[in-house]
Amino acid sequence: MRTLITGGTLVGPLGATPTDVLVDGETVAALLAPPVPIDPSARGAAGAATAAASGTGRPVVDADRVIDATGKYVIPGGVDVHTHMELPFGGTAASDTFATGSAAAAWGGTTTIVDFAVQRTGEVVEEGLTAWHAKAAGQCAIDYGFHMIMGGVDEAALKAMDSLVAHEGVTSFKLFMAYPGVFFSDDGQILRAMQRAAESGATIMMHAENGLAIDVLVAQALARGDTDPIHHGLTRPPALEGEATHRASVLAQVAGNPPLYFVHLSASEALGVISAARTAGRNVFAETCPQYLYLSLEEHLGAPGFEGARYVASPPLRTNTAPHADDLWRGLRTDDLAVVSTDHCPFCLKEQKELGRGDFSKIPNGIGTVEHRIDLIYQGVVTGKISLQRWVETCATTPARMFGLYPRKGVVAPGSDADIVVYDPNATTTISAATHHMNLDHSAWEGFEIAGKVDTVLSRGSVVVSDGQFHGRAGHGRYVPRGLSQYLR
Amino acid sequence: MRTLITGGTLVGPLGATPTDVLVDGETVAALLAPPVPIDPSARGAAGAATAAASGTGRPVVDADRVIDATGKYVIPGGVDVHTHMELPFGGTAASDTFATGSAAAAWGGTTTIVDFAVQRTGEVVEEGLTAWHAKAAGQCAIDYGFHMIMGGVDEAALKAMDSLVAHEGVTSFKLFMAYPGVFFSDDGQILRAMQRAAESGATIMMHAENGLAIDVLVAQALARGDTDPIHHGLTRPPALEGEATHRASVLAQVAGNPPLYFVHLSASEALGVISAARTAGRNVFAETCPQYLYLSLEEHLGAPGFEGARYVASPPLRTNTAPHADDLWRGLRTDDLAVVSTDHCPFCLKEQKELGRGDFSKIPNGIGTVEHRIDLIYQGVVTGKISLQRWVETCATTPARMFGLYPRKGVVAPGSDADIVVYDPNATTTISAATHHMNLDHSAWEGFEIAGKVDTVLSRGSVVVSDGQFHGRAGHGRYVPRGLSQYLR
Amino acid sequence: MRTLITGGTLVGPLGATPTDVLVDGETVAALLAPPVPIDPSARGAAGAATAAASGTGRPVVDADRVIDATGKYVIPGGVDVHTHMELPFGGTAASDTFATGSAAAAWGGTTTIVDFAVQRTGEVVEEGLTAWHAKAAGQCAIDYGFHMIMGGVDEAALKAMDSLVAHEGVTSFKLFMAYPGVFFSDDGQILRAMQRAAESGATIMMHAENGLAIDVLVAQALARGDTDPIHHGLTRPPALEGEATHRASVLAQVAGNPPLYFVHLSASEALGVISAARTAGRNVFAETCPQYLYLSLEEHLGAPGFEGARYVASPPLRTNTAPHADDLWRGLRTDDLAVVSTDHCPFCLKEQKELGRGDFSKIPNGIGTVEHRIDLIYQGVVTGKISLQRWVETCATTPARMFGLYPRKGVVAPGSDADIVVYDPNATTTISAATHHMNLDHSAWEGFEIAGKVDTVLSRGSVVVSDGQFHGRAGHGRYVPRGLSQYLR
Amino acid sequence: MRTLITGGTLVGPLGATPTDVLVDGETVAALLAPPVPIDPSARGAAGAATAAASGTGRPVVDADRVIDATGKYVIPGGVDVHTHMELPFGGTAASDTFATGSAAAAWGGTTTIVDFAVQRTGEVVEEGLTAWHAKAAGQCAIDYGFHMIMGGVDEAALKAMDSLVAHEGVTSFKLFMAYPGVFFSDDGQILRAMQRAAESGATIMMHAENGLAIDVLVAQALARGDTDPIHHGLTRPPALEGEATHRASVLAQVAGNPPLYFVHLSASEALGVISAARTAGRNVFAETCPQYLYLSLEEHLGAPGFEGARYVASPPLRTNTAPHADDLWRGLRTDDLAVVSTDHCPFCLKEQKELGRGDFSKIPNGIGTVEHRIDLIYQGVVTGKISLQRWVETCATTPARMFGLYPRKGVVAPGSDADIVVYDPNATTTISAATHHMNLDHSAWEGFEIAGKVDTVLSRGSVVVSDGQFHGRAGHGRYVPRGLSQYLR
Ligand SMILES: [Zn+2]
Ligand SMILES: [Zn+2]
Ligand SMILES: [Zn+2]
Ligand SMILES: [Zn+2]
Ligand SMILES: [Zn+2]
Ligand SMILES: [Zn+2]
Ligand SMILES: [Zn+2]
Ligand SMILES: [Zn+2]
Repeated sequence: MRTLITGGTLVGPLGATPTDVLVDGETVAALLAPPVPIDPSARGAAGAATAAASGTGRPVVDADRVIDATGKYVIPGGVDVHTHMELPFGGTAASDTFATGSAAAAWGGTTTIVDFAVQRTGEVVEEGLTAWHAKAAGQCAIDYGFHMIMGGVDEAALKAMDSLVAHEGVTSFKLFMAYPGVFFSDDGQILRAMQRAAESGATIMMHAENGLAIDVLVAQALARGDTDPIHHGLTRPPALEGEATHRASVLAQVAGNPPLYFVHLSASEALGVISAARTAGRNVFAETCPQYLYLSLEEHLGAPGFEGARYVASPPLRTNTAPHADDLWRGLRTDDLAVVSTDHCPFCLKEQKELGRGDFSKIPNGIGTVEHRIDLIYQGVVTGKISLQRWVETCATTPARMFGLYPRKGVVAPGSDADIVVYDPNATTTISAATHHMNLDHSAWEGFEIAGKVDTVLSRGSVVVSDGQFHGRAGHGRYVPRGLSQYLR
Repeated sequence: MRTLITGGTLVGPLGATPTDVLVDGETVAALLAPPVPIDPSARGAAGAATAAASGTGRPVVDADRVIDATGKYVIPGGVDVHTHMELPFGGTAASDTFATGSAAAAWGGTTTIVDFAVQRTGEVVEEGLTAWHAKAAGQCAIDYGFHMIMGGVDEAALKAMDSLVAHEGVTSFKLFMAYPGVFFSDDGQILRAMQRAAESGATIMMHAENGLAIDVLVAQALARGDTDPIHHGLTRPPALEGEATHRASVLAQVAGNPPLYFVHLSASEALGVISAARTAGRNVFAETCPQYLYLSLEEHLGAPGFEGARYVASPPLRTNTAPHADDLWRGLRTDDLAVVSTDHCPFCLKEQKELGRGDFSKIPNGIGTVEHRIDLIYQGVVTGKISLQRWVETCATTPARMFGLYPRKGVVAPGSDADIVVYDPNATTTISAATHHMNLDHSAWEGFEIAGKVDTVLSRGSVVVSDGQFHGRAGHGRYVPRGLSQYLR
Repeated sequence: MRTLITGGTLVGPLGATPTDVLVDGETVAALLAPPVPIDPSARGAAGAATAAASGTGRPVVDADRVIDATGKYVIPGGVDVHTHMELPFGGTAASDTFATGSAAAAWGGTTTIVDFAVQRTGEVVEEGLTAWHAKAAGQCAIDYGFHMIMGGVDEAALKAMDSLVAHEGVTSFKLFMAYPGVFFSDDGQILRAMQRAAESGATIMMHAENGLAIDVLVAQALARGDTDPIHHGLTRPPALEGEATHRASVLAQVAGNPPLYFVHLSASEALGVISAARTAGRNVFAETCPQYLYLSLEEHLGAPGFEGARYVASPPLRTNTAPHADDLWRGLRTDDLAVVSTDHCPFCLKEQKELGRGDFSKIPNGIGTVEHRIDLIYQGVVTGKISLQRWVETCATTPARMFGLYPRKGVVAPGSDADIVVYDPNATTTISAATHHMNLDHSAWEGFEIAGKVDTVLSRGSVVVSDGQFHGRAGHGRYVPRGLSQYLR
Repeated sequence: MRTLITGGTLVGPLGATPTDVLVDGETVAALLAPPVPIDPSARGAAGAATAAASGTGRPVVDADRVIDATGKYVIPGGVDVHTHMELPFGGTAASDTFATGSAAAAWGGTTTIVDFAVQRTGEVVEEGLTAWHAKAAGQCAIDYGFHMIMGGVDEAALKAMDSLVAHEGVTSFKLFMAYPGVFFSDDGQILRAMQRAAESGATIMMHAENGLAIDVLVAQALARGDTDPIHHGLTRPPALEGEATHRASVLAQVAGNPPLYFVHLSASEALGVISAARTAGRNVFAETCPQYLYLSLEEHLGAPGFEGARYVASPPLRTNTAPHADDLWRGLRTDDLAVVSTDHCPFCLKEQKELGRGDFSKIPNGIGTVEHRIDLIYQGVVTGKISLQRWVETCATTPARMFGLYPRKGVVAPGSDADIVVYDPNATTTISAATHHMNLDHSAWEGFEIAGKVDTVLSRGSVVVSDGQFHGRAGHGRYVPRGLSQYLR
């Protein structure tokens, strides 16, 4: 099966140029300078085309299918490196399965997710990974990989880290400076995991909030009777994200400088730590998420009554009385923020978010965005906050390079997997729980009007979305073992 | 004429992957996933090949010439955006003509230079550009463009800036904070030029040294009898480069933030200014040059007797008692230094450098490096200071994007000019005045042993260097009008 | 003549303690732990007292006069190191003579001024000093000293600097980075003056605004027809004060680190430069003035019509949309701002400020505050912005130490000049042109209500203000030759 | 009993001036401008003098004793706010009792110590204080106060803090970020203690080293067989002091900004945190100790064999390959380091330091310096590192103000305790275990030659040291309850 995507503008981190793309089977066979001569006589059903010899010296192509991308962008499929399908949390679980969540991702132009397998404190690392493989196997519409959440670092866990890197294609490990008793690692444990990563080349991913201090503030708030959702935000101040970010950065230095990647960075204070480390030339990286770019403590988390519950995530939405969001957009411009991921972790209002009515600390933490990331960040291009190139780089190319998926993922290049999105800048999208494809009874993005639209999505050469239809299937997506980071300096 | 470069590893800023490159005429027709099927029966003389239908679904190519790049890197031809061919200076002129200098560049894997046309204080801008066109026309072995040196900003010069941007393909203007009476602009003039650039989108290039302070120090040194070459360095301390860099950065803010590019950055103090501005998200950029990465005040400029004269350039070589060079390498890693150029400005010892015997201030300023940049920076890859990708990015891709040459130059992509270098990492090169191709009776790099070698060079599809032979010719190179910077945030 | 000030709280930079002060003639004879036994039988007319032997082991005092300071602060007389009496400016002259201005100072609790003798570009330094001595001699109500304004640094001026330090008690020299053609020194001249100061120990005072850039902005504003007073502020942006401050700081490093004192610091950008230099341990200092703490670009300089003219000074009042004033108060707390002076330079509206109607650049620059500094800064104590100790330190002790007047001035200690103010924190003061003592037909401080009041003022042991009466006289004040700075690290 | 100290130069933080001091009983009665007239006819035995009426208007004094300080400095007695007399540590106890240690302090010109009462994890705060009062009562040669070490913050401890502030004159509480299981508080506990201090006005003192990370490094070193004393230093890297300092600074912000005082600051990284907080105007303070100014990891802790054990303290001596010591001296100049204390905690080699032979982690932590602080810091004056004024300020005035002892201690002023040292800058002192007065069988300062000598020491008006003799007695020293910090901004 050969597919020619023709007439479009290929966009990558370096620029945008008119380029035709020939897909052969599951991978990209060639990039071609247009116009690519095609023999119209050979065109058959379903837009197939056979290119005859052109006589111009150009390579000739015969394609079974031609996708006309005229007036549209051709970009690598999105890579969302932070999702939590079916994550158990506080007695319930994230509402998207790998099946529903991966299909929703595909709808939104994301063709690879890297989800988090979980070891909780006291559990065995390898068993956690096995359990997550079981959840995902045969369910996914798109390709997927796993990071490993380390809920407690001991001798066995350290050995497991090496084993996962060597044998399982899991090369990144998330540690928590928050959630004592659940995921929390103390500074000694963090140091040891970082030392191990420095040796193996693995990446340490960090949830950087000072959970011990936060838990004091939470208990004090509840004791005062401050139980509304906004207190979730007020008890997790930006300074405590900044502090933890600084601490992790120093511990990494002491540990021998493993690659260090901060997840869901939300606060200016934390960004300042990243900027300083990066100016110093260190392998310190960070992602942010759409919620921190668009939503705020006052407007969303502080919505009347229990409305704010739908926006409860950790770190919390930040105040709009300080320039957190502006700083994050600037970080995306400067590459101090290298990646946009979603931290997709949806919980329905009904029976899930409601668990925290009267006690914000019991509201399941998470927002569902896996379907909308590409659209939401494209708005930054429309409003001039970032360039077209950075859109592609932060949503696809860098996440792939950061987590050892390149050049298989994150780029449209000869030999790469044919994970390709045709994006129409002239169409529009309206986001609503009524129309989205995530398994979620509300949307944090309800009513957002997007300039731009995911037109066609290919996953490993197969069209999974086109003409507003889903052509994918559970089980098309395969597990992708990953190598070490390719984004190091 | 079709050429297939096969078997090599294509290296760009994002990564290195096995990719075959098909050149058709002067441009790249396609990038192809190897192996590319070629019909051996069709192979004729001179390595030409006709590819038959492969039956594998791959595009089939027929090529007139096949270049075997097995075991080698295929990279975009180098772009050196800072050269001074035939530059008049202190009663003499740089010893390389456009003919000799551009041929030497080609030998070294550089396929585009951007030279500086000159308006001196009191002269007319357009006449300067005309004069430089006259010097270069029909002489160059490779393509070339021009920046404009503004030796004094007045109403006419400001109008000329707009005209050069609109009509002449000259979109970058160098100002001097040093050399009072020759090139110097005062802060008011700088502000006005920056305002104009902010409107037109042109880039301001800055020679950032506080020349008024330096001239006091020079006069004091000469008055004390300190006349040896090392005093060239001692009278131009790093702090005065840092100061001027800071000042220009602030003036650009006041002027409305035109793109601001610092040439030949040499000092940690200046780098700190760049880092701060870039962390703040501003369009502030800088280049450094090989001499600041490898040579030092003490070892080279302070060589016994008059030996140091061969290393006299401005800014001067910096002390090795402070980490200037380490900081510059770090800057290249972090992209605080975006470009490596040469500031190629060769003067022979005989009759040129000798003019300054007994008075360092009369030594013509300049070092000749246009032939060695690609090799010298590749050593940073060999020693682990930068990645393979950054080598290509700093020497080819970013300079092309920075100065409006992309995607015609700086990248190997469908539709781009076929300026391509095959680089052999397993061969070696020894630098010597006895063997180099620059018109220069000595070498600042004498005896440098390079791990790596320029193997084959194509300029717009023509092989100009291969098998240790020069196949180019004066006049092959064409003037390339440039657009606005494509490296903005 | 012996005076005992009894019952008060002596306030100095280290703290506030109940202490009695015995003045003998022109100086302080003793500080005494209260209660000081005084023989009531010996008390004569005018509050005089003779203390008999107390039998308690305490020293016994007999005083001709007793000042009851119960419930009041006893502080060293204020030292205002930045005044411009009778300064010629743009065809007119500051409206306060040394007679009127020094009397107004005394009214306000200031007992020493250091005024600026002026050498304009092209004039002879020593002649300027002579002229200023002639203006002041026999006129002043309080003691006075001189700084020297250097309006152009050449060989003769450099020699004059040394001579003034050695023979004239003038140990500080003000240079201008603004006002080209009038006072402006270029960077080479500044460097030379700094080098000379580094040798002699003199202090360089700097007016730090980039005048070359400002003059471009001024010309452009006038050309656009933007002639109102607010454009005085808009054409002198904070960034250009920050730039000049940074430049001067670097030049001082290159010159060998003379003491460097920035006058009238007004902008956060400039304060940041000071903070960095001071954290690095350098002898870099700054003053601010009340106008930058209380008045703003929008509210005052931007007052309707020509009203803003009364607030035209350089640097200009700063915007209240950025935290300049808050930052300055913080600087006073941290000692990054060591001194509060007035930059007293009054011009009447009538016939003076009016010269700039229709052209803001012709409005004489200056605000009159010499009478109100102690009161205005005391409000910072009342509102909790600074401590009681810092009020005394910034207004009296540090300026005396900074400019070589200590311990003669700036402290109440045995042997010091008896320049003493009794300040009543429970009384109040209303500022108005109708009641002030400056020769000025308006007040920038009209209607300011002060919590606190200057109660009694002694100058060298003589009561010059008490009971709301002026008891001083022209000619009481003497010229005070100054030594080198005593505030160095 | 009246004592007149005459002929000397009184030195305080603001300057040095010839001043006579009259002591009456336990306090200073007056400061007098010399010459003070004394009636020689009245002079009796033991240098007593009765001053007759002078006829000059000067106060007349009759003194029982006259101390001739001609050619000498008169300074406030030293205040050492960090000592550990009889501190239990690892099965042994610091070798100085309150009797021996306080006498040694007096010998060295220190007239007040503030020692640390201890609550260990699991103990009751008030019982700790009672125990320490019992150790000190009736033993001390000089006055003393207590800080409280909090070895674990819980509800009872928080209440105890308030009680100690309100009733016990204990206004400062030391927390540990190191020593898990002994003194360690986690971040939640620290936050709560800081919140309480923010309410009461108490000062939080912090031992800032990341003990959880350190304990991992220590265990790894011992497991590797790295048991020599130098590994005490190598397992406590400067970065981990910097990290903890930063963390505590952020926690204090979150807690409402109580006064925060870092003890025994030793590393440039930590100093940087202090500088930043102080530039921001926060009430963040730090002390350093002589060992960090003079001794190094390589030269002392790394001495051959077990020699390094005598220098084992925490934080450890720092490397001399980085400018830690230079930075600390600079910090003393700039007041980023406000205080010099000793962290006096002596352990003999015999039977104490020897406990750690073969396992550096078992070496009792501490160095004995209480006798030498004034001398050692005076060397900084001699070598030009700090001014004469800063010597007095950092060793006496600021510690007294910082910890609520002012103006009773730390200053020579009317009404203050007559704790006075006459210091002879022209005599010399040689430090040796053979001659020192601490109960310690070695000296970290063996062989140090001091330019300067403690000549005479008065404690509350009594001469305790003079003519090389000790005239003090155990029990003269009294407990001094302290108020809140008087050094706030
Ligand atoms: Zn997380
Ligand atoms: Zn997450
Ligand atoms: Zn240049
Ligand atoms: Zn150049
Ligand atoms: Zn001025
Ligand atoms: Zn002035
Ligand atoms: Zn400690
Ligand atoms: Zn201690």
